[in-house]
Amino acid sequence: MSAALFPQHIIARKRDGEILTREEIVAFVRGATDGSWADYQLSAMLMAIFLRGMTPEETAIYTEAMLRSGFVADLSNVKQPKADKHSTGGVGDKVSLHLAPMVAACGVAVPMISGRGLGHTGGTLDKLESIPGFRVNLSSSQYREQVAKIGLCLIGQTAELAPADKKLYALRDVTGTVECVPLICASILSKKMAEGTEVLVGDVKFGRGAFMKDKAHARELARTLVTVATAMGTPMRAVLTAMEEPLGRTVGNALEVAESIACLRGEGPADTMAVTYALGEQMLLLTKTARSATEARALLEAVVADGGAMRKFGEMIAAQGGDARVVSEPGRLPQARRQVPFAATRTGFVQDVDALQVALAALRLGAGRAKADDRIDHAVGFSGLVKVGEPVETGAPLCVVHASDDKALAEVKEMLAEAIKVGAKPVKPVTLIDEIIG
Amino acid sequence: MSAALFPQHIIARKRDGEILTREEIVAFVRGATDGSWADYQLSAMLMAIFLRGMTPEETAIYTEAMLRSGFVADLSNVKQPKADKHSTGGVGDKVSLHLAPMVAACGVAVPMISGRGLGHTGGTLDKLESIPGFRVNLSSSQYREQVAKIGLCLIGQTAELAPADKKLYALRDVTGTVECVPLICASILSKKMAEGTEVLVGDVKFGRGAFMKDKAHARELARTLVTVATAMGTPMRAVLTAMEEPLGRTVGNALEVAESIACLRGEGPADTMAVTYALGEQMLLLTKTARSATEARALLEAVVADGGAMRKFGEMIAAQGGDARVVSEPGRLPQARRQVPFAATRTGFVQDVDALQVALAALRLGAGRAKADDRIDHAVGFSGLVKVGEPVETGAPLCVVHASDDKALAEVKEMLAEAIKVGAKPVKPVTLIDEIIG
Repeated sequence: MSAALFPQHIIARKRDGEILTREEIVAFVRGATDGSWADYQLSAMLMAIFLRGMTPEETAIYTEAMLRSGFVADLSNVKQPKADKHSTGGVGDKVSLHLAPMVAACGVAVPMISGRGLGHTGGTLDKLESIPGFRVNLSSSQYREQVAKIGLCLIGQTAELAPADKKLYALRDVTGTVECVPLICASILSKKMAEGTEVLVGDVKFGRGAFMKDKAHARELARTLVTVATAMGTPMRAVLTAMEEPLGRTVGNALEVAESIACLRGEGPADTMAVTYALGEQMLLLTKTARSATEARALLEAVVADGGAMRKFGEMIAAQGGDARVVSEPGRLPQARRQVPFAATRTGFVQDVDALQVALAALRLGAGRAKADDRIDHAVGFSGLVKVGEPVETGAPLCVVHASDDKALAEVKEMLAEAIKVGAKPVKPVTLIDEIIG
Repeated sequence: MSAALFPQHIIARKRDGEILTREEIVAFVRGATDGSWADYQLSAMLMAIFLRGMTPEETAIYTEAMLRSGFVADLSNVKQPKADKHSTGGVGDKVSLHLAPMVAACGVAVPMISGRGLGHTGGTLDKLESIPGFRVNLSSSQYREQVAKIGLCLIGQTAELAPADKKLYALRDVTGTVECVPLICASILSKKMAEGTEVLVGDVKFGRGAFMKDKAHARELARTLVTVATAMGTPMRAVLTAMEEPLGRTVGNALEVAESIACLRGEGPADTMAVTYALGEQMLLLTKTARSATEARALLEAVVADGGAMRKFGEMIAAQGGDARVVSEPGRLPQARRQVPFAATRTGFVQDVDALQVALAALRLGAGRAKADDRIDHAVGFSGLVKVGEPVETGAPLCVVHASDDKALAEVKEMLAEAIKVGAKPVKPVTLIDEIIG
């Protein structure tokens, strides 16, 4: 190793605000992958990047190095165009579950590698695992075959996928270097690009229930994602969406699967379907499956109306070992022991439903993980959540609490009383779609 | 531990440019001492401090926490006033060796804990160890007794001294976080204050042969040292000195001891004595042993003239197990096998002697350590070095090389040819003392 590539020299260059060379960035990522950089050197570098930033060019090189640190799926066996979507995560965000089969039913393959939930946001894998028998751990050859055969596969990250990101993400979590656009961008794209998609659509959320609280930061992340992905040869667009109240009317794993099934039946909540169509339209446009948003929307509505999307969902469940009967019999999903309405104490309009507080209440019920090795209760959560602007009457339910024990139930009711505000003033419903970038 | 004191929260606060509380700074230093912060958290924090800085108040709290992380000597048994000096390190800087006995001979106790050399700067301990038998590892009770008895003790750092600094210094060295004023300040002062001195004089060097290349940075460090030490109850002044050519006419451990003995005999080089008197004057002024610089200078000159300083040096050598006969018979110091003049190839004036290149040449001879566990050859180095501005003639020696083997000798001659420039133009000698701060 030449002295110029000693870790401390590369760290010092970024510390001083210099633009790193490809060789230096590759040395850093290799150091994270093979252990030739000590953890304390990696974390010092992460802090220097956090405070000094990276140019789009540096971010693209960094993302590519992360991608190449591990397994990259070869989907050359798949004849259809391939599209995927990524969400930065929100409360009640079950869109992947029904969007993926909708797009697949339009003839676009959706090879989707997802993560698990941690903290207040849920994970697609956890939701899928509430379907009895569903397996998210497939081998890479099973993954390839399933994408080719039914145009749809939703699996979990493997150890071989972007191992540099796995290492660096764990360090960022404990060194105050999480909220940094170039680092977030590389972490998202290195994993998504490893799955073999041709185009990518991002759902970048902002607001108190999102990872990014602030719209300006979310927009910066969206722009960086689009610039870097496109520069790397994966056309991408990002939809900026608000995450102040939970998405849809359910929060909790099995309850969200049931709501996704309702969406596929054409009975989804308006807010959830607005986001679903906005993302699906871009997936069809980027793959040139549709020439306009209107045409794309019509295609997506058609596969919902004719049951094609629902059949695709059932095919995927069956292919991954799950009980596909849940599609027509959602009662086969896990059910909580206690299902208790949470009633309004006054008549008026819903002023606010605080997504973060609802998420923390769901966490208290056992729907998510506070720590990475916590166990999840798939049955618990909330259904029938009111939406901002809706009229309610004293005694009518603001939601139904699905709990496994009375202690959690009592605590959660207090949390909900804080989270859901009813007042006299009429309020407009929230518009979720803010901007489309790219 | 409250969540507010989780390492990642404290790191994030400094990352965002916040001023840390005493509790947060103490948690960080405790984390370095007891291992409750992981190395990667310590290094992320160091980088955040490097880039966001610390106020003088934060630096003082940090320094105090580092000091209290370990053993603090109790010299209440010593009746004399106590003074010490610290140098940021330079090439040929042997001042401590003769300054300490000079000041001690004036009735001021000098309790001095020093470090070893690493890289291109030498260490006082290494120089002392070229005296046959000299021991730098005394117990803390031996140290107390010797300071009380002869008013002078020069020992090495022990493991109990500022262990937090030991840990953090090692991390800074490999994470690009060395050159940071608050971190340097705390590292210097926490160790110096642990030795039990009452006042402190700093020699802060700038120039290519110094740790700080740039005068503005050196001044900033000097001001921070003086402000923080004084705020902590240890009156301090700092002398800003140039380090472009080596100090004195020797570089190398035993050779520098011989030059220090010459200084004590009243035969020291002018530049070395100028720095020695500037520092000694401040030590006597701060301890109120003298009322003016002129009076202090006269006291110091007197103990050189009457042999008192030389006797004190001999007493210290004897007390620490060394062969005190070196004082009158410097030939008892280790001698290199080869002692070869390096001759001028033209007549003219010395234009430049590059301290850093001379130091690297000495390192090549084996006079220093490139790595912490390298062995030192005490005999090798350079003597009779010419000074900038001196006239030389073709064939006259620019210095004498003391080497142990011919291969090193040949390489070093090439390095010297680069380092020492002779030209036709008359040049003024360098003025070393730039400013006194405090």
